[in-house]
Amino acid sequence: MEIIQVNAASRPSRVYCGAGAAERYRELYAGAETFVVTDSNVYALYKERIAALFPSAAVCVFPAGERHKNRHSLFSVLDAMFAAQLHRRSVVVAFGGGVTGDMAGLAAALYMRGTRLVQVPTTLLAQVDSSVGGKTAIDYGGVKNAVGTFYQPETVLCDPAFLRTLPRRELVCGLGEILKTGVLDAAIGEKIEQNAARLRELSFLEEIAADCIRFKARVVAEDEREQGGARKCLNLGHTTGHALELAYGRRSHGAYVLIGMWLESFIAEREGVCSPDHARYVRRMVSLGMKRIPVFPQARGCVRYALLDKKNAEKGSVSLTLSSGRGAWREVSLPASAYAEYLARLEVRQ
Amino acid sequence: MEIIQVNAASRPSRVYCGAGAAERYRELYAGAETFVVTDSNVYALYKERIAALFPSAAVCVFPAGERHKNRHSLFSVLDAMFAAQLHRRSVVVAFGGGVTGDMAGLAAALYMRGTRLVQVPTTLLAQVDSSVGGKTAIDYGGVKNAVGTFYQPETVLCDPAFLRTLPRRELVCGLGEILKTGVLDAAIGEKIEQNAARLRELSFLEEIAADCIRFKARVVAEDEREQGGARKCLNLGHTTGHALELAYGRRSHGAYVLIGMWLESFIAEREGVCSPDHARYVRRMVSLGMKRIPVFPQARGCVRYALLDKKNAEKGSVSLTLSSGRGAWREVSLPASAYAEYLARLEVRQ
Repeated sequence: MEIIQVNAASRPSRVYCGAGAAERYRELYAGAETFVVTDSNVYALYKERIAALFPSAAVCVFPAGERHKNRHSLFSVLDAMFAAQLHRRSVVVAFGGGVTGDMAGLAAALYMRGTRLVQVPTTLLAQVDSSVGGKTAIDYGGVKNAVGTFYQPETVLCDPAFLRTLPRRELVCGLGEILKTGVLDAAIGEKIEQNAARLRELSFLEEIAADCIRFKARVVAEDEREQGGARKCLNLGHTTGHALELAYGRRSHGAYVLIGMWLESFIAEREGVCSPDHARYVRRMVSLGMKRIPVFPQARGCVRYALLDKKNAEKGSVSLTLSSGRGAWREVSLPASAYAEYLARLEVRQ
Repeated sequence: MEIIQVNAASRPSRVYCGAGAAERYRELYAGAETFVVTDSNVYALYKERIAALFPSAAVCVFPAGERHKNRHSLFSVLDAMFAAQLHRRSVVVAFGGGVTGDMAGLAAALYMRGTRLVQVPTTLLAQVDSSVGGKTAIDYGGVKNAVGTFYQPETVLCDPAFLRTLPRRELVCGLGEILKTGVLDAAIGEKIEQNAARLRELSFLEEIAADCIRFKARVVAEDEREQGGARKCLNLGHTTGHALELAYGRRSHGAYVLIGMWLESFIAEREGVCSPDHARYVRRMVSLGMKRIPVFPQARGCVRYALLDKKNAEKGSVSLTLSSGRGAWREVSLPASAYAEYLARLEVRQ
């Protein structure tokens, strides 16, 4: 069992990585009042496991799916917390994927100005990315993660056992964020290239997940609230990815991140941010998770979603985090019209 | 102009105290996109002043009153922020009393995971207490400040000019928190006793407000999130005060804090937390703001509101911050039944 410390400015958190991580809850939180939040899919799969891991806990189940990551679900979770008469020392356990972690995390941040929070991520995406770093949110007004806050979990329990039940779509989703980290960190990128054949094996994913979490812990320690700059690197591929995700849905978040990285590698090259060689390297990484980039017949129209992105510093412009070399990146702001022209590349078959 | 630095752990804020503080906005935030949140009462009084202080700002007005400090108003403010297409570098100005500061502060904390926030408190209560320290919230499910977060304003502009239009009720309200601070801080307490005749003069209030802010800044720097303990001192009189406020409404927050301090002085004495002499001192301080304690015929029933309080660490018990001596306090937890017996004292004329 590896324990990774995340020294965020607001409060530290600890990530337990490895087989048996989930079982650690009982000793770490013996005697604490526990309130589990999970979604209907995860509950159907893990009802008995939840009962065994959190024997005396109240369990709050909300309908699965990103479209339920909304104001209504948030307040229904808060209502259940009030009904259970939780206090500030109670522990909210977010048991599930990214949607559960984001929403239960926000509920924990807001209830009585904050309860204790433990993340138990059950998807690869949540394990390598969203459960670590304290971002919480709901979608609102057609904008992803538009309403939320930064709230660090005390503890994250990353147990690879949960990955065994993951559908293929969810594996690809997590892979998207892993490959993104590979572009951001030269050592992780090299490890991925050397193990390209094992990329879908659980044993390898377990190992690389810990590398990704260690990388993210460093970034979050430097810039918890995405202000100084360091944390912005994690948005690689996300400006375009989020815009497409909002416009087209259906595919997974990680798949859209890969498509975003692919498109943004061309932007980086044309804008003189990276060499053609490096842009090809980024696209090679993308191809490890996604063989062929899909066609989006009206991709240019997505510029309106990109304009809503919280990363934009000025109106009428789109902020992008672009990879400028192995382990290097730069933030670039483009006028909406210039960005729309780049999006057009997604309208034709590659 | 005095500038008081609040070194909260999450982020520092600066409080500008004195005549002309509001005018400082223009130079401090030259060129920043500004979004003003205020309530209908304050807007009616200060429409022109707001236009002059924040010439190019969007202004969002919500209906005045504690009963509008709710989920509906919060989301209507967020909707207006989205309509104005604010980004994270935009500045939300909470212009008004405690309700405005709490709710606009929460909207600023949540919009895109946080915009910049400036508090311009226009009531005595907000100036000496709620605008400083980063507590934000709405009421929910019949509990005061049940849903909220800690979010420090960058800047607080405390301008005594606004106090001139304050109704008497609002002055008494602020006085409640000032007298509370007098019990918590020996030097402030002494100053209040020596100036008892000037307690309702604006010149004295302006001076003592700065003392109270300096005191609060020290407390918040030590314990921003009310976890280590230091910040709990600010809850003096508040357990009983909040419970009565929820049950009876009508009177101001500060008036209820005074009533709470009065009752809790007896509790402190009987529970052996303070001497009879000190309890009398606390009641003398209370009497400077409130000549006669009102009768609450069914005060015992308020125990159910006290049980909902976020300060309670265990179920079925009520946590109280009790003054144990000049500048000293202790946290005490009482079984609900014992606390209800104490409440009975409010059922008869004093």
